[in-house]
This record gives sequence, structure tokens and C-alpha cells, in this order.
Amino acid sequence: MPEQTYQLVIRGGTVATGRGAFAADVAISGESVAAIGRGLPAGAREIDATGKLVLPGGIDPHCHIEQVSAAGILNADNFESATTSAAFGGTTSVISFAAQHIGNSLEKVLADYHAAAERGAVIDYAFHMILADPTEQALKHDVPKLVKSGHATLKVFMTYDRIRVDDEQLLDVLAAAKENGAFVCVHAENHGMITWMVKRLLARGYTAPKYHAVSHPRSGEAEAFNRLITFAAFLDQPVMVFHVSSAEGVDVITRARGQGLKVFAETCPQYLFLTAQDIDKPGTDGAKWICSPPMRTAADQEAIWAGLERGDLQVISSDHAPYRSDQSGKFIAGPAPNFKQIPNGMPGLHVRMPLLFDAMVSKGRLGLAKFVELTAEAPAKIYNLTGKGAIAVGADADIAIWDPNKRVTLTEAGMHDRAGYTPYEGREVVGWPETVLSRGRVIVHDGKLLAKPGEGRFLARAAGDAAKGTGRMAPEFDPARNFGAKLM
Amino acid sequence: MPEQTYQLVIRGGTVATGRGAFAADVAISGESVAAIGRGLPAGAREIDATGKLVLPGGIDPHCHIEQVSAAGILNADNFESATTSAAFGGTTSVISFAAQHIGNSLEKVLADYHAAAERGAVIDYAFHMILADPTEQALKHDVPKLVKSGHATLKVFMTYDRIRVDDEQLLDVLAAAKENGAFVCVHAENHGMITWMVKRLLARGYTAPKYHAVSHPRSGEAEAFNRLITFAAFLDQPVMVFHVSSAEGVDVITRARGQGLKVFAETCPQYLFLTAQDIDKPGTDGAKWICSPPMRTAADQEAIWAGLERGDLQVISSDHAPYRSDQSGKFIAGPAPNFKQIPNGMPGLHVRMPLLFDAMVSKGRLGLAKFVELTAEAPAKIYNLTGKGAIAVGADADIAIWDPNKRVTLTEAGMHDRAGYTPYEGREVVGWPETVLSRGRVIVHDGKLLAKPGEGRFLARAAGDAAKGTGRMAPEFDPARNFGAKLM
Amino acid sequence: MPEQTYQLVIRGGTVATGRGAFAADVAISGESVAAIGRGLPAGAREIDATGKLVLPGGIDPHCHIEQVSAAGILNADNFESATTSAAFGGTTSVISFAAQHIGNSLEKVLADYHAAAERGAVIDYAFHMILADPTEQALKHDVPKLVKSGHATLKVFMTYDRIRVDDEQLLDVLAAAKENGAFVCVHAENHGMITWMVKRLLARGYTAPKYHAVSHPRSGEAEAFNRLITFAAFLDQPVMVFHVSSAEGVDVITRARGQGLKVFAETCPQYLFLTAQDIDKPGTDGAKWICSPPMRTAADQEAIWAGLERGDLQVISSDHAPYRSDQSGKFIAGPAPNFKQIPNGMPGLHVRMPLLFDAMVSKGRLGLAKFVELTAEAPAKIYNLTGKGAIAVGADADIAIWDPNKRVTLTEAGMHDRAGYTPYEGREVVGWPETVLSRGRVIVHDGKLLAKPGEGRFLARAAGDAAKGTGRMAPEFDPARNFGAKLM
Amino acid sequence: MPEQTYQLVIRGGTVATGRGAFAADVAISGESVAAIGRGLPAGAREIDATGKLVLPGGIDPHCHIEQVSAAGILNADNFESATTSAAFGGTTSVISFAAQHIGNSLEKVLADYHAAAERGAVIDYAFHMILADPTEQALKHDVPKLVKSGHATLKVFMTYDRIRVDDEQLLDVLAAAKENGAFVCVHAENHGMITWMVKRLLARGYTAPKYHAVSHPRSGEAEAFNRLITFAAFLDQPVMVFHVSSAEGVDVITRARGQGLKVFAETCPQYLFLTAQDIDKPGTDGAKWICSPPMRTAADQEAIWAGLERGDLQVISSDHAPYRSDQSGKFIAGPAPNFKQIPNGMPGLHVRMPLLFDAMVSKGRLGLAKFVELTAEAPAKIYNLTGKGAIAVGADADIAIWDPNKRVTLTEAGMHDRAGYTPYEGREVVGWPETVLSRGRVIVHDGKLLAKPGEGRFLARAAGDAAKGTGRMAPEFDPARNFGAKLM
Repeated sequence: MPEQTYQLVIRGGTVATGRGAFAADVAISGESVAAIGRGLPAGAREIDATGKLVLPGGIDPHCHIEQVSAAGILNADNFESATTSAAFGGTTSVISFAAQHIGNSLEKVLADYHAAAERGAVIDYAFHMILADPTEQALKHDVPKLVKSGHATLKVFMTYDRIRVDDEQLLDVLAAAKENGAFVCVHAENHGMITWMVKRLLARGYTAPKYHAVSHPRSGEAEAFNRLITFAAFLDQPVMVFHVSSAEGVDVITRARGQGLKVFAETCPQYLFLTAQDIDKPGTDGAKWICSPPMRTAADQEAIWAGLERGDLQVISSDHAPYRSDQSGKFIAGPAPNFKQIPNGMPGLHVRMPLLFDAMVSKGRLGLAKFVELTAEAPAKIYNLTGKGAIAVGADADIAIWDPNKRVTLTEAGMHDRAGYTPYEGREVVGWPETVLSRGRVIVHDGKLLAKPGEGRFLARAAGDAAKGTGRMAPEFDPARNFGAKLM
Repeated sequence: MPEQTYQLVIRGGTVATGRGAFAADVAISGESVAAIGRGLPAGAREIDATGKLVLPGGIDPHCHIEQVSAAGILNADNFESATTSAAFGGTTSVISFAAQHIGNSLEKVLADYHAAAERGAVIDYAFHMILADPTEQALKHDVPKLVKSGHATLKVFMTYDRIRVDDEQLLDVLAAAKENGAFVCVHAENHGMITWMVKRLLARGYTAPKYHAVSHPRSGEAEAFNRLITFAAFLDQPVMVFHVSSAEGVDVITRARGQGLKVFAETCPQYLFLTAQDIDKPGTDGAKWICSPPMRTAADQEAIWAGLERGDLQVISSDHAPYRSDQSGKFIAGPAPNFKQIPNGMPGLHVRMPLLFDAMVSKGRLGLAKFVELTAEAPAKIYNLTGKGAIAVGADADIAIWDPNKRVTLTEAGMHDRAGYTPYEGREVVGWPETVLSRGRVIVHDGKLLAKPGEGRFLARAAGDAAKGTGRMAPEFDPARNFGAKLM
Repeated sequence: MPEQTYQLVIRGGTVATGRGAFAADVAISGESVAAIGRGLPAGAREIDATGKLVLPGGIDPHCHIEQVSAAGILNADNFESATTSAAFGGTTSVISFAAQHIGNSLEKVLADYHAAAERGAVIDYAFHMILADPTEQALKHDVPKLVKSGHATLKVFMTYDRIRVDDEQLLDVLAAAKENGAFVCVHAENHGMITWMVKRLLARGYTAPKYHAVSHPRSGEAEAFNRLITFAAFLDQPVMVFHVSSAEGVDVITRARGQGLKVFAETCPQYLFLTAQDIDKPGTDGAKWICSPPMRTAADQEAIWAGLERGDLQVISSDHAPYRSDQSGKFIAGPAPNFKQIPNGMPGLHVRMPLLFDAMVSKGRLGLAKFVELTAEAPAKIYNLTGKGAIAVGADADIAIWDPNKRVTLTEAGMHDRAGYTPYEGREVVGWPETVLSRGRVIVHDGKLLAKPGEGRFLARAAGDAAKGTGRMAPEFDPARNFGAKLM
Repeated sequence: MPEQTYQLVIRGGTVATGRGAFAADVAISGESVAAIGRGLPAGAREIDATGKLVLPGGIDPHCHIEQVSAAGILNADNFESATTSAAFGGTTSVISFAAQHIGNSLEKVLADYHAAAERGAVIDYAFHMILADPTEQALKHDVPKLVKSGHATLKVFMTYDRIRVDDEQLLDVLAAAKENGAFVCVHAENHGMITWMVKRLLARGYTAPKYHAVSHPRSGEAEAFNRLITFAAFLDQPVMVFHVSSAEGVDVITRARGQGLKVFAETCPQYLFLTAQDIDKPGTDGAKWICSPPMRTAADQEAIWAGLERGDLQVISSDHAPYRSDQSGKFIAGPAPNFKQIPNGMPGLHVRMPLLFDAMVSKGRLGLAKFVELTAEAPAKIYNLTGKGAIAVGADADIAIWDPNKRVTLTEAGMHDRAGYTPYEGREVVGWPETVLSRGRVIVHDGKLLAKPGEGRFLARAAGDAAKGTGRMAPEFDPARNFGAKLM
């Protein structure tokens, strides 16, 4: 048995998993965790973690980086700023989007996003491919290639002009995913209800940003979830329902899962910590809180927490979609915009983990193990990010060392993204990630970024178990019940 | 108290209502029932109904007469043939459609249908207005006039190219109905699922008529019901769900009604007496059983009967939509059509009542009182056909005198419509309406038509209680919860 | 056709049924309605009903008369006072209880109640047999005789010491009912929960009458409903759930009916017009509002109205259970009783119809037709009271002529029962039954009773359609799935 | 950093957790896992695990050892035989029962079981206390002591004469658990339904063992679950539903969890691998498959697997309840017993883990991670077995080293319990635990037991998070809604 010196040992901390926490050192060799234990031999370098929590780096599986909106507006962050912001918040992997617009070739779109990420990313990244134009070329030729090259999730929108898919296209995408072993993520809201409400609001002069929150009906979320799940069950194709915002939406998810359907669901900090009241600001300032779906009520927050507790929602992402709080972004439509002209989204990569740590660990809601599960283990498992999401032997040494007692007041000055504001300005949180490692390298320490743009690496992903169906398609596909037709 | 001689007395029969049956004579003065009782004074004319059932004439609230399909094919019946056929089956009122196609003025469409009906109808009639093109003109100007002139139901399609409305338009129609006190009837199936299945079936060469039954997924019915009900609840506008065909569809209706939503539902004989096996005929003969939604399974029939029994479905219409079984109709696409080229629908006005009488009364399923309720009382009440649907003092004397023991084998030769076939060829039924009265006049007797075209009368209908909402709109319409907006 | 003179004609009124109302005269011959119509020949006697509503006399299918409670306390009314009280309120038939106590022979109990009723009743009556002691003798020998002699409903209690049946006994009763074609009515509350709460409340000194309302948990109602329905579905035996008081209870009923189970349900005016706040009186006065289940909240009232509207509850009875407001009844336990010592129940026979008329007709909630259905048609149909419940040719001429505009303030002075108080003291209602007929005889007119004790007649009842099962027992009874056992 | 030599290193295997598997060595110091990693320093002793799976030892949280049944029959195993059997099957901790019979003092019962376990156990153990007689003494005085001394679960039976609690007692137990921070496990079946069926079966001569399977109705399980959950929600006391056997039972659990109630559930191998057909044996041999609830159908197995997959069931125990297959046990009632005279239960401690490994890992259903979660992680977490259930630094070194390819045919000869038969005779499984460690000591290796009776240790357990309520009791406990009463 050859004696070995570990390259780095994080010593004396408390290591946490989705199951519990224990005192242990963590030894790192190369990019991986080599050992977890007590009395580990000395490392070439050591970090003292006494009194600290040694947690897996967070995974943010839903963020928009260096992306142009459907309306043609570039978001505020490039890969360098976005991933730097993530790293400072204890997040060590992101899944961003490669966003097709109608007419674009998927191959070209993907190449462009890869180039941008290679250039700028300071942490590891993967891509969901947004299909806005599911042509036969895209579905038959490009999707198989995408999946083979490690992009095994497709994303579609059921609302937003210019990028949404209609029901028939959604079925096409789900079928292509099934045939290629891909997973499908969906922004599910009823487009017609939104359009109808927008017209009615604007026609009556209700143009202020806050009316955005009225324009996306709660029941339009539940309706679209139900429709999506009908299609998913029809084809036996698992889906991820993005950013659940309402109690009614949670109910639809819960009922579907109770029937054994393979439906996963996500929420975001804005649906747990903010409500529609937060958008009710003087003048046009509410623009900064415009996101879709909009923030709802305290009762919805409770329903979402309950859904997280019982496992009907599995993931909390940021849905980071930063637009600058100036004329290039949130205020692009001038001094008197109507809410429909304002780009949708808010920054969140930086604060996702601290907000959740504060609520779940410091204040005790659901606890540390569930924090690790929701922010790291579950997204790694569902999105099949091999080697990510846990401090485990052989896994990538993506680690955030948290000071559980550090008090931080969230302010724009403390952010590293380029949105120019934080929706949580002035909120105090307890607990902060002081040292962050990506594949064994310390990338954040003492408030400083130690990584260089381009050091992040692409995470190729095959579809994992989450993307495998249950084996039960609708009777229409059963030759014994469809007059012998072979349809898949 | 002046002594009075009744014009006509139907003597010695058993009169039935939705609550029960009793021995009584029925006296008629003018067009109305003057008295029901025993020992009534002699009438100027008497009909001996000994051993017979004296029932209210049937109301068929969903039939297509002298209508051109979305694909431009004229259906087989004009008002004379259709209403004659109805009368021979014991039906004394129909609600037919005034069918707008895109670009048509509602006013002109309505005038044309009225002219056709005035010319040909031998029984009384009303109209549902089909909105295929809900423009602002139609909704703001024409709908109010329609309702005021006695056409207080709008019908829309959620599927079929060229006539379907999308979600936003459906909301527009529901809102216009709400504002004008109209009722809305809907053909609810998911259009995208149908289109997707049709393409897939045809692309793989499954073109025979029977594949029509595969192309309308069962879950597409339940999905569309759920979406429709979401919208209806959002705006608090009652709706009638047309022709429920599947157990899943029944479930959606039942759940909605259990939540107190004002949702009504209908089925048709083809969903109670036929299954998908009936369309599996040699060659292209299955074309004659193509209707939408398609016929399903024996288990669905049971679920629909159960829904009728507990009142979640309230109405059984024919959905009479006759196309000739020749090159002008069912076989218009030549000797080797694909199922999508075949017009949808089947004749049913004549046989609806006898099929139901046989099943419900002669064979005993649900019984005579429920037969009267489903075929006469309930449609009169829901569609607000004043003076129709019951043998009651002051009501129109629309009466069918049934011989409960007469055995009749249904054959094309015995039909009075012009479809050229009956989907029930060779089926024997027990019970037959021998004498039929419309507003006091005997119109069918001894197998002969005694009425003349044009004797039928238009039934102007305001919206009744069914069309009144519950008073609870979605929170988005509540100024206390939508930042003070007034949206309705 | 021999000319005929009717014995009595009620002329010029508006006759109402569960389907609608119309202007008509009503002619009576002997004890029955002979004719309904316009221009009827003169009667030997005539009643002018101009401006009045001519309604079927009410049926109160759940009232306790001349009954000794489980605790041995005689209730305040005998058949004369109770049925007089009913008649003044427009009720013309009651179903009372023949109440077995443990050890009593059913035959003897029944004979005693019959004797009492024959002596005193001024209106017609039937009996539900309460089984407190379902011995083999009772089930095998007495129940068949009971049913044959026209007592086709059994009642059991799931709570109350000394009279309740346990689960095994409840199954015995349901099985005996099934075998004999009887119907089963149940007071369903969880006995253990009540006992547990009572002990806990009393042990902590919460003895005032109002704590009775706390001692019967809301979820204990829903639990017992679910258990009862499990058993009923197991054996395929229809049941009537008595006096639903809570929203949770309504939900259980609705879900069961949505699954096609044959479950019927009743509520009472106290659950529609009173709440737990009404029992919160100074001193011991709350005793007068003690009934079981207790009155709940305004939200429960709304849920019950909704259940009535959609037909999940079909009947509104009084559950008349009068105890005198003195030391012989409500205050039998002296000046400082604990709530458990106070007999349960309140008077209601007189005011049931006027309270409901006021709410449903005068104030418009659900309307006149539904009033007739709930108070007369539905109980007659469900309990198979042949010839009762509607003004129909050949039916018993049980009629109440209402002045829809008369204002009456409910006071103890205006009551005809012997409770000595009314729970609705001081409440004003609009609408009052001025003239009441029982089988063609005027029994109440101008505030005077014109009938004599003993003129009421026993109504023998076979089980009707309501008592017939669905044909689906549990798999345990299917020889193909139970190793060939024949168990029923 | 002092250099350290580990006492034992398991080298070269694949370590698995509920989240995944990875290549790693496991180092042990004293009784605990010291480190997990690659390149760990040499141990004083090394075990070569190349090609093996290194898994946490199983936890069997529901087994009956050295227990006398309610009918007075001693089961076949003492602690030595039972825990030896467990160890050979890869199980390293058991939770057995300290079973009170009516009249026994809890303290005495507990002392007796402790003495037996101390004498015989070769692996670690804890106790659930069975309360058959929840007197005030037991609840007020004994339960607090029990919990303080590390027995923080109470078990009650809702069926079985002589040991079952009635509804009021069940509430007492739940309330005592709540007050003392204990968890409650329940055998939930409707007692009345079972008794009723038993009587009916026996009275008709259906006495063979297979009729046991008919005598416990499926809906009696769902009913009792619903009742239990009603009570649990009423008091906000978490519960564990033992041995779910039917699809209907799963549904009740799923619905309750979907409402946010804290309900946990367990199943057993007999409900996953056997059906009612397995009890249909010639003569009286079926006696060996009598257990309660009985085995059901293949469709129930599927429903239970689906419930396990989505997390609505969390635990798979053996419910080991061995009775010898001779006159001292299964055949105690002689050659022609009726099924009710046969003791209920079957042996399962040995085969639980191999049966599940074969199905989940070798055949691939749900996979290795879920196997570890269900058999080790989840029971440790739910029952708060600190230091058990996972291979984690600092945790007890309870480890089973599995050969994933070893084929074993299950036969009585290969068992180490004393039942004298295995219900799975002749079934082949793939995968077997070859070496088993308890707190660092090798206790099974090469088919030999290396531990001595008495080496097992008592595991004191406080109630964990699972036993903490949600904070929401029924409204009856809310002083704002119960007239100010303080009831808990």
C-alpha cells in the first residue's frame, strides 16, 4: 500500500450531505475528492475549517447568461460576470441556455454559446438547448447530435411571442426527446390568458410595472402544467416544470406525481422570499421586479415550501435573467413604458445560496440536509451532472466552506453581476460561503476571485434516470388498441 | 265558473314526468296543455291512449341542419328532411346551428339560417350561433343583438381548422357571453394532439377510416375540458361541454362540478351504444361511423352512464350531422380516401329517442323518469326553452304518445333523413312514438307526417339560470387583489 | 265521458314543482289530486288562491317524536303536538323513529310507536326503525318482517353510548338491509373522538354548554362518513348520511358520489342558518342550542349550500328533537350542568319550511323549484313515499297554499310544539303557509287547526330505487377472486 | 498532524450511498468509519473488496423477536437465532418490539425484553414499545420514562383481539406521543370488517388457510389508514403506517402526503414478491403464508413499487414474525384448523436484503442507490438511529460487503432462523452479502458467524425530525376558535 500525500486537506470542518452532517476532513487529489475522514494524513496544503460547514458547491440549473431575449435585448451578464457572481454565492456549476431564435440553426447557436462560455466561465457549466423553432431538420438531425455531444436537455416555452411552441410543436419536441433519450424543461404558462389579460389591462390604461403581476393569471400556470403533463403522460416522456410560483401549480404537480407520472418541478428564491407586493413601487421602479411567472402571495410561498418538503418540487434554481437597471435593460422603453415593454427577469445567481442558507439552515426551515439536497444533490442527479453535487470520494472537489454565523446585508455594492441592482437590497442573511473550490482549486477566498475566465469547463451530460419514462404510453400507441398501428 | 270544452283530450294514458308517472288524461286548448287529470270533461276531439305512455316531445339541443362543413361540404339534410326525421322519432324541438365561417357577417349568416328554417321546419326550432371568427365587430355589436333577438347561446370549436378559436379568442367569447348574458357551448378537444396524431398516422400509411378513432386521443378530450373549465372559472361564465365520449372526460366534469363550478355536459347515443369496434369495417365503409370525438370503449360507455345517473352529465343530444353515404358526402374523396378527407358526423335525429327509450325504459337502465328528464326536461331548462320539455299546464302541447311494447328494427328504409344509411342498421328496439303532437296539432300519426314544411316556429331564448355565473371570478379581477384595476 | 263535479278546486294560484311554476287550478276528488289545469269545471267547494303559491305539502323525513333519549329523557312532543306543529309549518308528512333501546324487542317497540301515532297524528307518518341492538334475532327475523310491513328504512348511530353500533354491527345492519331491500340512514360521527374530547374538556373545567360545540370535532364527521361509505361500498348497500354539518363532510360525500357510489345526504336548517356562535350564550342558556352534530361556521354553511345546489345533498330535514327548556328537559341536570348532561336536539318541525322558503324563495337562494325539490319531491322519491311529494294527478292531495308576501316574526308564542322555545326567536321570515291540506282535507286555515288527532295515516313504504345497489360489491365477494367462496 | 494507522481498511470496493456509488476504500478506527477515500494509508488489517459492493448494513425496523403473540403463542426465534439470521442477510440493526399484553406493566415488559436481547443479540437493536393497555399510568408515567430511556416509538394495533386499541385509546396514545416527543407506528386495518368476514367465512365452512386472505378486506386497510391519519392530523402527531399491502392503501398515503401531512409508510417483501395465489396450497400448508395484512395481487405490487419510487413509502421492513412449521407454531391447532386459529406471520429477517438486492440491483428495479436508501438510510433517519444507516465518516462501521454476482437459491437449509421453512423456498437470487461488519468487527464471513450472543448493543433513540409535527393542529385546539379552551 503506497503512502500518499494529499494535495489539499480541508481540516476540522463539518461536512454535510443530503442525509446529515458529520465532523470530517476532506482530502483532495488532483481535481477530485480523494478521501473524507478523520485523521487523514497531512496535505501538501491545508485549509482550516474549524467551526465551518464544508458543503458541496451549489448547482444552479437554470440561468440565462449572455443571452438575447426574444425581444432582442441582450442580458446584462456575460459568462465572466455571471459565473463570478455565482462563485461568490457558493455556486460551482451552472446550467445556462443555448437559446435558438426562430430561423437560427441549432448547431450555430450552440457553437456561439460554447465559444462565449469557453472564453469567460470561471466555474463549470452545461447547456440546456432552447428550441424555439422545432423544424424537422432540428428534430431529426440536430437533436440527436446535441444529445450525443452532451446536451441532453431541451427547453421550450409555452408562452412568449416569437419563441413559444404551440401544442403540436410541444408534442414534436417531447417525441424527439423520447427518441433520443433527452429530458425536457418547460416554461409553462397559458399564452392566451396572458395575451388576453395584457390587452385588457393596457386598453384600460393599467400600464405600470405592477400590472405585470396581474397579467399572468395564477390559473394559467396550473392550466399549462396540466396540459404539459397530459402530453408528457401521452408520450411517456419525463419533464421538468420550471419555476413553480403558485399553490395551484403545486397542486397539479402533486396530483400528477401521486399518479406515478414522471414529473419534476423547480421553484426559485423569488417565489419563496418575495410577493406581488414587492413589485408595487413608486413610478417605474417596479420594473426591476418584473419576472415571469410573477411573484405571488405569502400563501403561495407556504404551498411551495410544503411541496419542497414532501419532495414534489426537487430543485431551487435562480432563473437568473439580469437586465441592467438602465436604458439598456429594464428601462429600455423610456420614462413611461408599459409593463409589456420591460424585459422579464431578475438577477439571482449570487444570492440564491445565501438566501436559502439563511432560511433553511440559520432560521431552520427544512434544515441543512435539505438545503444540500435541493441546491446540489438533487439538481446533479436529475440533470445527470456526473461527479457533481456532493462531497463524495471520486467526485469533483467542488466545495463551498460556509461560515454559518457570518451576517451579511445584501446590497448592490456587494454583488458581482452587472444588473446594477439586487431585488433583495437591504435584506440581512446569516451564513456566507467564505471559501469556494472548483475541481480542487480555490476560486474564491477572502472576498477575492482567484480564478481566471476560461477556467470553467463544459459538463457533457447524457440523459440520466430522470429522463427515462415509466414504460406506459397512452393507449393510442398500443397496437392491441389502435388497430395495429406502430406509431413510435 | 264558465263551463269549457277542451279542443283535444288524450285520454286514458300514463303521463310521465322527470319525477314519475301516473294515469291521467291530458287536455289541450289552443297550442297549450290546459289540464291534466282524471275525469276531465270531453274534448272536441279525443285520442285514446289506453296502454300508452304520454310523454313530453323530445328536445334535441345539438343538431346540424342544412349546414356547410368547415371543409365546404353541405350536409345531407335540409330543415324539412331533418325535422321530419326528428318528428318521427318523437322529437318536437331542435336547436340547430347558425354556422359562421371566417369572414362571414353573423347577421347575414343568421338571416340565411332563419330563412331556411322558416321554409322547411315541421317542428319548432332554435339556434346556437357558431362563432368561428370572433372579431371585435362580432363580439361588441353582433353578439348583443343576437342575444336580444333570442339566440342566447354561442358555440365555439377548440379544434377543426378554419373554424376553431384559439385560447385568447375563447376567452373573448366567454367574456362577451358573460357581458351579454349568453351561454357558451364548446366542442372541446385538443387541436394540437389531433393534428400531431393525424400527421403521424398518415405518414405511416394508416389511412383507413378506423384510424380516425386513433387520431383523437382520449386524453386530448380531458385536456381540453380542463382548459375550457379553467377559462370558464376564471371569468365565472357557465359552459356546456358538448358530446363527452370518454371516462377521463367524465372525470374532469365531475371534479369541476364537485368544486361548485357551473359546468354542464352532454353526451350522445353514439357514445352510449357504439364503440371504436364499430368503425372497423372492410374497405372504406367505416367512413359512415366517422364522427368527432370518435366512439370509444365499453368501459367509457359505463362511465358515461354513471355520469348521467349522478347528474354530472345532464343532456343527451343526437349531434345529428348527416353526410350522404355517396360521393357527395362520406365518399367525396374518392375510392381511396384517407380518413382526414372524410366529413365528420352521423345521422341521429330520428333514432335518438327510440334508442334511449329502449335502453332506459324497456331494458330498465335508469328508468322512465330519467328518460324524460334527459331528453326533454333538462335540455328545456338548461337552454331556457320556455314552455317546452314537460307536459305541464300552460306549457306547449308538444307530446309524443309511445307504444311501450312495439318492436321496431332500425333500418335505412325506415329513416326519414337523407343520409342514406343508419349507423344502427338491424338493431331492434322496443318502444316507439306512434303519435306526435306539436303545439296541439297531431304531426305524426300512423306512420304518416301530417305537418307541412314551415309550420315549425322559431323559439326565441333569453339565457336562463344555467347561464348565470356563481358570482366568483378569479382573483385577477378583484380590485383588492389586482392593484385596483377594473377589468370587467 | 260522464261529466264530473270535483269535490274541491283550488283556483287561480301558481302551482310549483321541482321543475318550475305555472298558473293552474288544482282539482281534488276524494283524497287525491284529480286534475291540474286551466278552466277546470267548478268544484263542490272552491278555495281562492289568487296571488298565492300552491305547493306540495312538505315532507320532513327525520324527526323524533314521543321518543325517549338514550339517556332516558322523554322528548317534549307527543304525536299530537309534533304533527300539529308540522302542519302549521306546511309539512304534511313526517318520518319519525321507532327507537329500539338495547334489550327491547323490535316488534314491541314498533307496536308502541304505532299506537302513539295512531292516537295522536294529525298528518301522515312513516317510521325509520332505530336498531340499537342488532342481534341475530333482530336481523334475521325482525328486519324482514319490518320491511314487509312497510318500514323499509333502518337507522343506526355510530356515536352515543347505549345506542351506537360498532363497525361489525354496522356491517351486519348493512348486510341485513341489502338482503331485505331496506335503506339505511346513519348518524355518522366518530365516537372515540367525541368521547376523547369530552373527557379532556370536562377534566379541564370547560363545562359550559358552548363546549359541546368543541367536543364533536369536524374531522370526526368526515372520518365517520368515510368509514360508513367504505362499508356501504364494500357491501354495495346504499346509505343516507344524516345531518351533514361541515365542509369536510360535504367533501367526503361529493367524492364518493363522483365515484359512482350510491350515497345520499341530508342537512338541516340549523346547519344552514345557525353557527357555533349561537350557542355562546350567558349562563346555561346555550343548552337550548345543543344538538349533534353541533352547528359550525359560516364557511360550512356556504359549503353545504353548494352541495345542495349541485345535488350532492338531496334532502333538508328538521331533525326535530325537542326537549323542554325546563327541568324536565334541557335543564334536567340542574343549575350547573356540564354540557354532556344536557339532552341533544332542538325543535324544528314548525319552522323548517318557513325558514327555507324565506331563504330560498323570498331571498332567492336556489329558488322556488329547488325549494319544492328539497322539501317535498326528493324526500318522497328517496324514501319511496308513494303518492307524496308533488302536486300530481293521482297523488295525495297534500297541499300547502303559501302567501309569499306574508311577514312573520318567529317567536315561541307562535309555535305549536312543546319545547317551550324556538332557536330562531325574533327572526323575521317572508312567506307563510296559510292553508294546508292533507289528503284533500283542509287541516290548517286562518291560524286554526281543523284536523283531529288520529286522522293522520301510516304510510307503508317498500324500499325504492334509492335502496337498490349498483351491482358492484367488493372483490372479497367475487368467487373468481375469493377462492370460490359464496358469501352473500 | 499526527500520522495514524487505521485498524481496518476495506480496500478496492465500490461504496454506495442513497445518492450513488463510487470506488473507494473504507477505513475503520474503533467502532466507527474513520475515512472513505482513495489512497488511504494501510490498515492494521485489510479486507480486499475488489469487485464487491461495500454497502451500509441493513436496518430492519420491524421484526418480532422472542415475542408471545396475543393468542399466547411464543414465536420461533430468540434474540440469538433472529439476529444471527439477520446478520447472515446483511442486516446489522433491528428494531424489535417490547410487547405489552393487557395488564402488564410497561416497565416490567421492557426489562424482560432488554434482558433477552442483552443475552442473545449478535447485532445492535432497539425497541418499539407495543401499547396494548394504554392506562393513565402507562401514558402519564411510563411513556415519559420510556422516551427518556431511548425508546421513542410506540406501536399500537387497530386490530387483533386482546391487544388492539380502540379509537379513543388511539387518540390517547397519539396525544401522549405528542407530549413526549415520541413517534407512533400502527398496524392499521379495520377490526370490525375482519371480524365480520371471519365469522361469515367460518360460518359457511370456508376454513382453509387461504380464506385468511379473503378475511382482511382490501378496503379495510384503506379505511383504517384514513381513520388513523384523521387522528394524526387532528393532533398533529406524525405516524408510521406499517406494512402497506394494497393499492388502495397506497392511495390514501399518497393523498395525505400530498396535503402536507406528516405520514410515513412501510411495506415488506411479502407484499412485493408474493400474492394471494401463494397461499393457495394443498391441505393446510397455506398456513405458512398466513400473515396480516395478507398478500394481495400483482397490481398491488405495482402500486407499492410506484409508491416506493415516488417516496410515499419510505421503508421496507421484514415484519419477521416466525412461527415454527410444526405443532408448536403454525400447526398448533391440529390437523384441521380453521384459518383463524393459525398464528399470523412469517420469517423474513434473513431474506429481506437479498430479495430486495436481487429485484432492485440485479434486475434493476429502482437501482442500487434506492436499495441503500430504503433498507438503510431511510429507516435510520426516520427512526433516528444515530450513527446507523450509511457509510459515513464518524458513523458506526456497520457494513455489508456484497458479491453482486453470487447466485443463491433460497432454501430452508440455508436459513438461520428457527421457523423451519422459508416462504421463498426454491427462489434464486443474484447478489449476496459475503462479509458483514458490526461496529468494525467482522461478524459474518465465509458463511460463518464470528460474533457471540450478547455482543449486540442497545440503541437508545430519542425521537427525530420525523416525529415532529407540522405545527398545525385541528381548529378544535385553537383557543381563537374553541371559546378559549386550552386543551394541549
